[in-house]
Amino acid sequence: MDTVNIGAMLGRFSEHWAPKKIAEINDYDVKIVKVQGDFTWHAHAETDEFFLVIDGQLTIQMREGDVMLAPGELFVVPRGVEHCPRADTETAVLLIEPRGVVNTGDAGGDLTTEAEPLL
Amino acid sequence: MDTVNIGAMLGRFSEHWAPKKIAEINDYDVKIVKVQGDFTWHAHAETDEFFLVIDGQLTIQMREGDVMLAPGELFVVPRGVEHCPRADTETAVLLIEPRGVVNTGDAGGDLTTEAEPLL
Repeated sequence: MDTVNIGAMLGRFSEHWAPKKIAEINDYDVKIVKVQGDFTWHAHAETDEFFLVIDGQLTIQMREGDVMLAPGELFVVPRGVEHCPRADTETAVLLIEPRGVVNTGDAGGDLTTEAEPLL
Repeated sequence: MDTVNIGAMLGRFSEHWAPKKIAEINDYDVKIVKVQGDFTWHAHAETDEFFLVIDGQLTIQMREGDVMLAPGELFVVPRGVEHCPRADTETAVLLIEPRGVVNTGDAGGDLTTEAEPLL
């Protein structure tokens, strides 16, 4: 029964847009990801998606307008809402969503990846 | 579509052991709670429970041993595992669990409360 230090976990990888699983809550995964630049526009028809910024600054672009998140700020993208995360500088984010959710949602493409466990 | 600043939300209440809901992820609630002293031994037969320390120091006492969490550290108490949170000084914690989970689990008692929304 190990505790998880988010900062230590972030020190274990460097690639962008490649979420790593650090914990599980029932059938939900807790993931961390480092991002920089623009992701891809996509939506998740079946689920909300939780974003908590750990370090840096994240913009979640949506068709109705952008939200900007600093460290200690969170936002839940409602299911079905198109969004495109963006970060001008390297930014670390904690994500929570049901296990098996594809990072690029309905969009697919080269950025599609499965979250590797860092457990 | 509002962002949630955890620190600002923590500034809006002072009582201990009274979780406040700050966001929803599908049928899960995201809550913050201020704690100090000992809670009550209890278990949740149906669900894991996610703890992320925001400020202070949290000890999660369990029958197999304690875990200690500093800010930026998280732990998931597995379903069915008896636990009793404790904090020597005031500590702020972010909790995630399915909506409707009772804070005192199977133990009941005076500390039982529903999470009020701070949305």
